[in-house]
Amino acid sequence: MVAVCLNNGTVSVREKPRPRRPDGFALIRLLCGGICNTDLELQRGYYGFRGMPGHEFVGEVIAADDSNWIGQRVVGEINLACGACEWCRRGLGRHCPRRTVLGIVKHPGAFREFLTLPERNLHRVPRDIPTEHAVFVEPLAAASEILDQIRIPGGAPVAVLGDGKLGLLIGQVLNAHGAEVHQYGHHKEKLRIAAGVGIEVRASKKTPVAAYDWVVDATGSSLGLAQAVKMTRPRGTVIMKSTVHGLVGINSAPVIVNEITLVGSRCGRFEPALKLLRSGRVRVDGLISEAFPLKKAALAFRRAAQPGAMKVLLNA
Amino acid sequence: MVAVCLNNGTVSVREKPRPRRPDGFALIRLLCGGICNTDLELQRGYYGFRGMPGHEFVGEVIAADDSNWIGQRVVGEINLACGACEWCRRGLGRHCPRRTVLGIVKHPGAFREFLTLPERNLHRVPRDIPTEHAVFVEPLAAASEILDQIRIPGGAPVAVLGDGKLGLLIGQVLNAHGAEVHQYGHHKEKLRIAAGVGIEVRASKKTPVAAYDWVVDATGSSLGLAQAVKMTRPRGTVIMKSTVHGLVGINSAPVIVNEITLVGSRCGRFEPALKLLRSGRVRVDGLISEAFPLKKAALAFRRAAQPGAMKVLLNA
Repeated sequence: MVAVCLNNGTVSVREKPRPRRPDGFALIRLLCGGICNTDLELQRGYYGFRGMPGHEFVGEVIAADDSNWIGQRVVGEINLACGACEWCRRGLGRHCPRRTVLGIVKHPGAFREFLTLPERNLHRVPRDIPTEHAVFVEPLAAASEILDQIRIPGGAPVAVLGDGKLGLLIGQVLNAHGAEVHQYGHHKEKLRIAAGVGIEVRASKKTPVAAYDWVVDATGSSLGLAQAVKMTRPRGTVIMKSTVHGLVGINSAPVIVNEITLVGSRCGRFEPALKLLRSGRVRVDGLISEAFPLKKAALAFRRAAQPGAMKVLLNA
Repeated sequence: MVAVCLNNGTVSVREKPRPRRPDGFALIRLLCGGICNTDLELQRGYYGFRGMPGHEFVGEVIAADDSNWIGQRVVGEINLACGACEWCRRGLGRHCPRRTVLGIVKHPGAFREFLTLPERNLHRVPRDIPTEHAVFVEPLAAASEILDQIRIPGGAPVAVLGDGKLGLLIGQVLNAHGAEVHQYGHHKEKLRIAAGVGIEVRASKKTPVAAYDWVVDATGSSLGLAQAVKMTRPRGTVIMKSTVHGLVGINSAPVIVNEITLVGSRCGRFEPALKLLRSGRVRVDGLISEAFPLKKAALAFRRAAQPGAMKVLLNA
């Protein structure tokens, strides 16, 4: 089968044997994958990664222990948890210390014709969600995670810093939740996507000081956190959504003086994301830049890394 | 009157006119002041400070609008708030954007024979609390602030990083609250103070990884935050109590991957601190290194800055 490989910054497409399906796992034929900024970070050496990337995908189940899965169109949670530890028992397998992570940590990723994933990780994609929309379930779940961690009252003004793919999903999730979202960004055409769903958009050149009780840093930049702290009112909350490789310099004094809370936020549950997509309250059509066949993965990765690029898809 | 002045890193003692008492303010004769790490930071140029420092004090009211105050032994909250803004109305004058701060921001400090402070900032010191204990009310209030911000269940293991003055107060406050405190430090003789009140003490050379749901960074070091993050379990909370001058480098990846919450924490209400002191559940005798007369402030500041020094007092 065809598989995408990362090795020392190089993206290659290779012929690999079809994976064996362990007990409890489904064998899944890839329909569509999405290139995430994390994939680009992996390419740059984040996590010392080398191997098959890909964690945003939609596939069709080919084989499984539970025959009800066979033929189903699915998305899959990316953390492969032990199922037995304290975290797993609390429903937080995303924090299982023994977890592997699809396409990120010790489990080969989804950018290949066939992949395996535990059956308990799978979610059926409702018929009315097109495949190229369902591929956004994983990042949309990460965006929705904020609302699992923090109570934001309806009508509360929230600043979302960043107009990249994740920032635009976060803006929509919080908007659908009922917050008064102000999306800050550098790119007129990207901010237009947010404006199109009724979000107030603002240029991120001049951000107001101590203006919000909730600020989301989705800039993807090492400078985003300091900017977010500046925008936050005393006793307010900054949600950290920018995974930046390496050290981020922050001035701890304003965090302490203004008693600001910083909350790290990562993966989320798939259920709220599927609901949001199905309801039409989050729209993802505008977030797709291009689609390439799996064989053109090297070109797809280059396109995804270009400034201003939105989601680049890989079709099997 | 005699007053302590800071100017470009130099501590001097000068003759100054006795301050005039504005309406609503009390004129207070200093009994005892405490040198805080913040005073040493002010000496180093933090906040661009120059003038009269001092915010930990006990005094006797000499003149006031309300004659009931006269002759009372008092401590005073250090934030001089406008009393009218949103923050003040919410009882959070400590965050009033128009506030000045005794001995820190635009209000001359307490290290002088006479000082002024709004009457509404004052708290009477109960007879059974000695003056040299009451001088700890301000830092003890800062330690108690943690419990105003965060719910820590009784019996929960909490790591307190740092065995300095503030760290030892925090350890005692959390211990009195019913948490299972583990105090980490470098100094055997300081850890002995914590052990003396029944706190479990540990060397901070080898700290456990992902071991606590609550970790307090009171190291006063720019490396403390990263160490605290390492010790925190997924979804756990780091309380930031180390005001460090300048940038602190943090790796945001573990904060995000483990969804850790960082909470900046500063000044607190005086009521819980006075209660704790009075109840004997927090003991401060062991935290006093030395006492000097106000005129020897330069020497007192040098002693306070010596490695291993505990609280240095200034007696009027």
